[in-house]
Amino acid sequence: MVADTASYHRIVLDSRPAGRPTADNFRLEEVAVPTLEDGEVLVRNHYLSIDPYMLGRMSTGVSYAPSQPLGEVMIGEAVGEIVQSRNKEFPVGDHVVGQLGWQEMALSDGQALRRVDIGAAPMSAHLGVLGMTGVTAWYGMTQICSPVAGSTVVVSAAAGAVGGVAVQLAKAKGCRVVGIAGGSRKCKYVMESLGADACVDYKKHADSAALGRAVGSHAPDGVDAYFDNVNGWMLDGVLPLMNRFGRIALCGMISRYGDTPMQLSAHSYLLISRLRAEGFIVWDHLDLWPQALQELTDLLQSGSLRSGESIAEGIEAAPAACIGLLSGENLGKQLVKLN
Amino acid sequence: MVADTASYHRIVLDSRPAGRPTADNFRLEEVAVPTLEDGEVLVRNHYLSIDPYMLGRMSTGVSYAPSQPLGEVMIGEAVGEIVQSRNKEFPVGDHVVGQLGWQEMALSDGQALRRVDIGAAPMSAHLGVLGMTGVTAWYGMTQICSPVAGSTVVVSAAAGAVGGVAVQLAKAKGCRVVGIAGGSRKCKYVMESLGADACVDYKKHADSAALGRAVGSHAPDGVDAYFDNVNGWMLDGVLPLMNRFGRIALCGMISRYGDTPMQLSAHSYLLISRLRAEGFIVWDHLDLWPQALQELTDLLQSGSLRSGESIAEGIEAAPAACIGLLSGENLGKQLVKLN
Repeated sequence: MVADTASYHRIVLDSRPAGRPTADNFRLEEVAVPTLEDGEVLVRNHYLSIDPYMLGRMSTGVSYAPSQPLGEVMIGEAVGEIVQSRNKEFPVGDHVVGQLGWQEMALSDGQALRRVDIGAAPMSAHLGVLGMTGVTAWYGMTQICSPVAGSTVVVSAAAGAVGGVAVQLAKAKGCRVVGIAGGSRKCKYVMESLGADACVDYKKHADSAALGRAVGSHAPDGVDAYFDNVNGWMLDGVLPLMNRFGRIALCGMISRYGDTPMQLSAHSYLLISRLRAEGFIVWDHLDLWPQALQELTDLLQSGSLRSGESIAEGIEAAPAACIGLLSGENLGKQLVKLN
Repeated sequence: MVADTASYHRIVLDSRPAGRPTADNFRLEEVAVPTLEDGEVLVRNHYLSIDPYMLGRMSTGVSYAPSQPLGEVMIGEAVGEIVQSRNKEFPVGDHVVGQLGWQEMALSDGQALRRVDIGAAPMSAHLGVLGMTGVTAWYGMTQICSPVAGSTVVVSAAAGAVGGVAVQLAKAKGCRVVGIAGGSRKCKYVMESLGADACVDYKKHADSAALGRAVGSHAPDGVDAYFDNVNGWMLDGVLPLMNRFGRIALCGMISRYGDTPMQLSAHSYLLISRLRAEGFIVWDHLDLWPQALQELTDLLQSGSLRSGESIAEGIEAAPAACIGLLSGENLGKQLVKLN
């Protein structure tokens, strides 16, 4: 619970990071709990979702979304409980997910809130496997990679939140799955907890060619689909391994975060191997969310899907959790649990 | 007619080009007309098709097809008339298209021959708008770019054989079409003969950014689809102009022919703008050829599609025609008419 119900804490973006963010870019504030106007609700946030896209929002570069304004509460999804309501749609006691920001309490007009059933899964899962993370993996895997049983699927950032769900969805389809992750701890997690057939530690490979050879050694029949969270040199390594008519879901560009954009050298394989590469953002496909959430819930309840989480404690831990995520420290979904 | 019916001329690949081919890489031979075995036909070739893909075949690099063997007749499509037959399917007098090679006469078992109706269009058109060229443009434009009336389509190598058909197909769909071609003569042809709304002379622009600005000035509403025959720096110039959910048909890599592979810098727009880029080879889609040829024939006969051709004379002109094509000298389809 929030200690003092007259005020709460939030984190604002204080300055723009030069490259990767540091603790100095964020500022903790204590502010008064607002008075509700008609139609509004007050949500007490229980978990914050920390996601790689946040770096793009903190910068002013070209992205698919507007930049995070300085001095305002950090954007981000959260799950919480409605503690005050002047909106008939959302009574006190409902649990909701929304773009509620890095703060202990959030005011909302209810428009962008999604009610969640905490009987179906723990609250935190609604930010992970049953939230944007899960639906992102579902969309890229089922709508773009569309693998069939027996085919080979490669997933990069396989120990991350989205990659981890993508690995499990491909396994549930009966595919051979080769993950790519950084370090032996993550590779062990990808194979032992997520069920991948193999996992390549990219930190052991100096360049695209070496990485490609390592992935190829675990994909004797070539690669039919690639769920790419990294882009850049990793995409360059996998492109030459792709089988004819292969599909590449372009989900993220971790390789670019905070660094100089990477040049791509192996793009000629798109033509040589007649590949389809498609970028996507899960928010463009709201019509498919009900189907995705139903399938993900079924898989979760049947035990075919695990909800891997790394949880930091307290609002003041959010900046470090975000910095850690961007350095690849997390296994699975990075969350901040609010006290 | 072939002067001496006991022999004919052909051109073989004598050595592999280092970069772009020169006349020295080819050799003219005179050989005896073979005696037919059961099931075979002898075709007298009337026109040879000269195509950009031939450079890929002459090299030993990675491609979607095996290399052209040294000392053997140059591969390539031709259209001709059956002059001897021991195959009931293909009687003397039939006109056929096939991979008959750079030669005045060709032996075939009939397996890969396609009978053509020279009443529907002149013989040469069956190598161009009603042949592989036309179906390639049709597939990329209708199946990947899939433009709707009022949208903006960019076509590179717009004065070339495939590009020229692509321009006209997009115009027939009611699109705004911006061509990219090299030189004012080609740009004039693309606008005046093919009907493009604008054409950018890429030779006037030093880099991707400048080219992009020039194309963008003719695409005030952004670019919805890009039919790419060039790849490399031209793809880099167009990628930032693409509208959300845009489609890119990857048809060729002229920019790479004979040169060092180009790196791609703007590939992050695939994700930022949620684009779909798809490579294709028309031979993978034989099931769609009847539909494509019917639609192309209808457009040709209704006057919505022109068959632009550059015609060289005599088998001995084939190497120069190929070298010229790879230097971008042709307007429309490059053919060699055999005497």
